[in-house]
Order: sequence, then C-alpha cells, then structure tokens
Amino acid sequence: MNIYDIAEKSGVSIATVSRVLNDSDKVSEKTKEKVMKVMAEEDYTPNVFARGLSGESTHTVGVLVPDISDNYMARAVALIERRLHEKDYNMLLSCSGFRAEEKEEHIRMLLEERIDAMILVGSTYAGSDTKSHNTGYIEKAAQKKPLFLINGDVDAENIFCTFSNDYAVSLDLTKKLIENGRNRILFLTDSESYSAKKKKAGYEKALEEAGIAPIPSLICHIRNNIDETVSYLEENHPDFDACFATDDAMAVGVLKYAMKHGVSVPKDLSIIGYNNSELALATTPELTSVDNKLEKICDDTVIRLFSVLSGNGFVPRRTSVACTVVQRGTTNH
Amino acid sequence: MNIYDIAEKSGVSIATVSRVLNDSDKVSEKTKEKVMKVMAEEDYTPNVFARGLSGESTHTVGVLVPDISDNYMARAVALIERRLHEKDYNMLLSCSGFRAEEKEEHIRMLLEERIDAMILVGSTYAGSDTKSHNTGYIEKAAQKKPLFLINGDVDAENIFCTFSNDYAVSLDLTKKLIENGRNRILFLTDSESYSAKKKKAGYEKALEEAGIAPIPSLICHIRNNIDETVSYLEENHPDFDACFATDDAMAVGVLKYAMKHGVSVPKDLSIIGYNNSELALATTPELTSVDNKLEKICDDTVIRLFSVLSGNGFVPRRTSVACTVVQRGTTNH
Repeated sequence: MNIYDIAEKSGVSIATVSRVLNDSDKVSEKTKEKVMKVMAEEDYTPNVFARGLSGESTHTVGVLVPDISDNYMARAVALIERRLHEKDYNMLLSCSGFRAEEKEEHIRMLLEERIDAMILVGSTYAGSDTKSHNTGYIEKAAQKKPLFLINGDVDAENIFCTFSNDYAVSLDLTKKLIENGRNRILFLTDSESYSAKKKKAGYEKALEEAGIAPIPSLICHIRNNIDETVSYLEENHPDFDACFATDDAMAVGVLKYAMKHGVSVPKDLSIIGYNNSELALATTPELTSVDNKLEKICDDTVIRLFSVLSGNGFVPRRTSVACTVVQRGTTNH
Repeated sequence: MNIYDIAEKSGVSIATVSRVLNDSDKVSEKTKEKVMKVMAEEDYTPNVFARGLSGESTHTVGVLVPDISDNYMARAVALIERRLHEKDYNMLLSCSGFRAEEKEEHIRMLLEERIDAMILVGSTYAGSDTKSHNTGYIEKAAQKKPLFLINGDVDAENIFCTFSNDYAVSLDLTKKLIENGRNRILFLTDSESYSAKKKKAGYEKALEEAGIAPIPSLICHIRNNIDETVSYLEENHPDFDACFATDDAMAVGVLKYAMKHGVSVPKDLSIIGYNNSELALATTPELTSVDNKLEKICDDTVIRLFSVLSGNGFVPRRTSVACTVVQRGTTNH
C-alpha cells in the first residue's frame, strides 16, 4: 500500500494525498477526513517518515528546474549531474514550470520521494511571479530535507544558497554604457525572479548615479524568445541606443531587429546579453554577454551538499560568485 | 545493507559491485570472489530482485541521455518529463557521455535503481562510436526492464524504438541541392550514431543517383560546436558550394565562416542544418533546418511506455516519424 493506492482508494489525486500529509490549507476538511479515513483503514504510514526513521541514505538528490529545455538550466543540470554521479549519487529530476502553485506542488511531491536533499535551479524559486507569492513554501520544505538554491538568496535554516553578484555587474555594465555616451538604454527582462530584480536594480542605480531619469517605455517585460523580441520591437518601436537584456535570446532578438532595419551595431547601438550561452556565438557580430560562472555555482553547490550530508564541519549558508562581462562585437570597449 | 555498503566493505567501486551482480566479463575472478564473499557474509539480496518479486510499481522511469546540455536532448527530456509528470511518474535522470564503456556502466547502474522502465534518448545508444561496439548491452538491459529508444532502431525483445526517417529526408534534400545546381556538397557530422549513419547514407545515395562521385575531403567528422566548425574550415578550406550538417551548431559555424569571407548565402552557398533548434533563428539570414518532430517522437514514446507498463493490448516495437524541412534564408526554394 503506497501513496498511489491511497489516492485511488480515496478517489482523489496523489497531489491531494500529498497535501493532506502536509496538512495543507488548500484541502477541504471533508476531503481531508475522507483521505485520512482510508489511510487509517489501510494502516498506511507515509514513506517519508519510514525513511527518516531508518536513517539510511538513498544516494539520490531531487533536482527541480522550472524548464529543462532552457539552455541555461540544462547546462546547470548537466554540471550538477556530473558531480553527483562522481559520488555515485542519482538525480531525480522534476520540472515545475514558473507558476507559484505548480512550484509548490512539485516540491511537495519531491519530498515524498526517496531523496537525501533537494537542489532548486533558478532564481524563480527565490523570487515571485505574483505579488502574493513568497518563499515560505521552500522554508517549510527545508525543514524536511536540506535544500540548495542556485541563483537565489533565502535566509532560512537548512537552505543553502549560491548566487552571482548580478546587482554589481549590472550596475557596472550600465555605467560603462553611459560613459560611452548611451543614455536611452533598453532593459529587457523575462522574469520577476530574485536574480532579474537584482539586475534591474543595478541598471536603475546606474541611471540614478548618472542623473538620468528612467524611461518607463524602455523597461520591458517580455518572453525570452528571439522572434517574440523582434515582434515586440516591431510593434512598439522604442527609441533606444543601447540594450541590456537579462538573457541572451532577447539580446539576439534585438540584434536581429537592428540588422533588419539597417542599424549599425555597435556604432549606433550597443547590445549586451546575459548567461553567455551558445546563442552569443551564433550571431555576426558575436554578442557581448555576462558570464555568471554557472560551472562554479554548480560545483560549489554540490560540494556544500556533500558537506551537509556527511555532517562534516561548518557549512556556510550563503555564497556569492562574481560574474564577468565577455566583451564581443556588439559593444565598444 | 545496500549496494553502497557492499562496495565499501569489499573495497571496490559501486560500478564494480554492479558488474559482479550482472556477471560481467570485465571483473577479474579474484574481485568477483571477494565481492561475492562480502555479499554472502552480509546476506545481501540485490534490490532489483526484491523489487521484481514484490511486483509493485515504483512510479519512476530511468532516463538516460549522453549530454543534457545539448539543446536537442534537453528539449527531449523536457517533453518526456512533462508527459511522465502528468501521470504522476518521476524521472531518474542520468547522463552517460558518448563513450561505449560509460554508456554500459550507466545502464548497469540505472538497472540497480527503483525504476519501472528506461528511456534512452539519442541514437548514440543504438549506434557505435567505435567499430567494436555493438547493441548487445541494451539488449541485455531490456531483459530486465522494458527499454524505450529515441532515435534508434534495435530489433530485440522488450526494446521499443521511435525514430525519424532521417534517410529519406537526407536523400530528398541532397537531391534538391543537386537539382539547384550544387555539386560540391559538404557533409558535416559529429557522430557515428545510428541516426548520423542514416543521414550520411541518404546524402551518398543522392550523389550516386545523380552520378556524382563522393569527394572524401567533403565528408567531415567534426565536433558539433560553432567555433570549432569555423576553425576547421579555416584550416582545411574545402572547396564547396553547399553544406548539409547533421546538427544546427555546425551549420551556424559554416554560415559564420561564409560571412567572414564574404561568401553570399544562399546565392553562392546553400546551408542546411538539422534539429531546427533555437540557433537556427539566431542568425541573419535564418538557417534552413530539418525538423525531426521531436515532440511527436517523445509523446509517442511515453504513450507506448504506459501501454507496456499497464499490459494493455499489443504495443508495436518500431515506429517511424516523418521529418520535414523548414525552409529559411540559407537555401533557395
């Protein structure tokens, strides 16, 4: 008798059984009673406790990403898997999407599995896609298993964070654009995540320091997709002389739009992307992009994970890794 | 007492214990004896059998890819994960690399885990990277768990294959290049996999039908990397008027090389990539590329997986999916 059987016998989904086990507010009292009655009849003990009592390592780590088809996240998962495999650990991979409710459900379900720890890839887990959403759900999860956050910063017990200095590098590169005479800098982002907010704050701080008033029409929230970026610019034709995008695909879209309209890059338009992906090398000219040292972030995360699991010594909860800007053909020096 | 403890007590790696359990030839008789003695002392039963006897579903599928940071494979994993999750199944993800020995070891280790079935993504598992390598290792694995192969065709009990018609589409597009007056067609591939061989066979057949002798210096095995392709062309400066690459990154490298040297595309050079990735949209002009219908292949694979696991009705072992050519700016119509 396992959670799947309980779900079937109760006539509810596994997610609902999971919610009952976690005493979630989202299940009605009536449903809760029905499920608990079935559990009592079947003498069911949730595996998560059984495992906790046995104290045995499962040699498995749960890894959660919003979207594995995203280049950046796929690279992160590849790096993490390699390090886990070296230590004979398995990876249970789950893809949650970006919506708050789905992220919570995926974490809840991962916690039901035989895992020693969880790694959450992407700052979406530390940020918010809606104003009402907070980080309480991962703080709660971290009470059950050690939780490692890549590109997020949540200050709570049993949550270990590794993030890059997005604020400092964004401030710095926006300042350099201004020094080079740019003053209408388009800021493109696809997210309201922790890391996107840091990038935006750096951009805004640089404008403020230079005494430039931010122009609302130049701060745009779009999807991180080459052709949708081109379409957005065709529809809105913003007046800009530089662009700083929080991911490379949007920056490539800007370059494509510029080439289509005969705008000279980098003479009349500077473009900077983020994540230093393969896309940055596909274009002519090649794209200047921020390298946020994903390999170092992932290595650091897995090293700390094994330190926590082995119980050896003090493990710092928060670590920052410094980004660098890779200068290529879409910006002047 | 589990496999990790047996490994530690025997002073060997987990992979070695796994090899002993699978009665592999690669372990010396001496090591085999040592490990088996520890197993006997500890009264150890491999979990794989215990699970087989209990007959209970683990609701987990093992997924093996050579490299998850590859765009194509990451997209496949995203599609598979979504379908598995819809059915409340988990994905145990493992990344094997491309070397025969590593692939065999990863499959052996996955079989030790609590999984209901295995999905192998990428034709490397059905092909060979060395001449001595064959598909016996996956045929053996399929005796233990149903095995689903994406982009490969292995005719054996309990192996279910879904693959695209790479031969037909390659034959067809090479014929069209010849009809358009091209006769020095560069063929770039990064692999000797099942699917790469089919593509090459289609290319060669088209040349043969047109009475064009294949030129060895125009059939090149390189890495699927934009800048390495550019370097290769700079060093070898082959004389060609068209290029057919078995993956988009190589085709983008060819376009970059052409732009650098002022070659007019598609007027004086036609370029065709494969997999219709995001890279194909990053360039100006955009890249003509073969769409091998990955979504359909993955959906079909997971649907058949659940049919096999539920034991409902007859499930065909081999399914072919038709590719299409997405015509863009690097070829004439």
